[in-house]
Amino acid sequence: MGKILMGPKTWIYPMPTLLVGANVDGKPNFMAVAWGGIANAEPPMISVAIRVSRYTHKGISQNLTFSVNIPSVDLIRETDYCGSTSGAEVNKVEACQLSVFYGKLGSAPLIEQCPINLECKVVHTLELGSHSLFVGRIEETHISESCLTDGKLDVNKIKPLIYMGEPGRQYQALGEVLGKAFRIGLELKAKE
Amino acid sequence: MGKILMGPKTWIYPMPTLLVGANVDGKPNFMAVAWGGIANAEPPMISVAIRVSRYTHKGISQNLTFSVNIPSVDLIRETDYCGSTSGAEVNKVEACQLSVFYGKLGSAPLIEQCPINLECKVVHTLELGSHSLFVGRIEETHISESCLTDGKLDVNKIKPLIYMGEPGRQYQALGEVLGKAFRIGLELKAKE
Repeated sequence: MGKILMGPKTWIYPMPTLLVGANVDGKPNFMAVAWGGIANAEPPMISVAIRVSRYTHKGISQNLTFSVNIPSVDLIRETDYCGSTSGAEVNKVEACQLSVFYGKLGSAPLIEQCPINLECKVVHTLELGSHSLFVGRIEETHISESCLTDGKLDVNKIKPLIYMGEPGRQYQALGEVLGKAFRIGLELKAKE
Repeated sequence: MGKILMGPKTWIYPMPTLLVGANVDGKPNFMAVAWGGIANAEPPMISVAIRVSRYTHKGISQNLTFSVNIPSVDLIRETDYCGSTSGAEVNKVEACQLSVFYGKLGSAPLIEQCPINLECKVVHTLELGSHSLFVGRIEETHISESCLTDGKLDVNKIKPLIYMGEPGRQYQALGEVLGKAFRIGLELKAKE
């Protein structure tokens, strides 16, 4: 199997599809972000990369808080709209009919229609060039009751939007369950 | 729709399944990492969160280089094995029969069987508590020829492993294509 060199590319697959929220000049705004991931376990932290010119960047800088909302597949149009427009020009909350609420931090807007919402407080900001990498401590997690089974989060009920980035740039659904982590690899371990 | 508070949780969905590689004491080692994401566009950068006690952490610290390899679904057992064992105890390259090669950086081991390989040079390290967040500049991207269509990367040929984390901890395949990014949201834009 041959390999081709492509130069430096921002190509990892899959990516999540996150709606990052911030109050900008006191009003809630959301943008779609695929460039984010968990950064630490104890204490829980998450990082999101936001282009410096974005309206949401202004809001995170103003409050040093942000939210991460996980949309499910039925919010595909609203999510893509939030990734294709700027809050400097349109009111995304109205256009998408998002039900916004606030939690513990008071300044990080959360979307009721999203099954999972994280409230985050900025603890580090790295200026990397085109983007700022905001590292936020996760202060609270809100889960929709409809995603619980026997009082526990059921990952099979989340139905997240998966982003397959450049050059295809498409949203996909989850497919079949292939195996349990920390278990399916034991088949190789047995052969050691 | 009611919401339940769960306290601070590292819950985002989906996550990628990455094999992060480093030379440790001069020998290639790989671990499975779900906590990583693109961090910057210009220049291209990626961040990965690695628990300080990990063998791979030692290797990244020694060379200040690492690799990110994207396994496809047929590598599920090998990938989970690399996430369930330590290079301090087993030779993962041998146990998983990985074909290792080196690129531009010379010290970041790459896996031939993975359709995409990124070579990264550490430019920032944030000590966040349990984990170090390594931010690497992506210096080169290697693509398997089998993932090209007309000379361009075809995201439909990658077949990445998706990780759905706590509390389910399962690997899933990609499902159906739901829509094009920066296009499907235009249906809402038209209504503005």
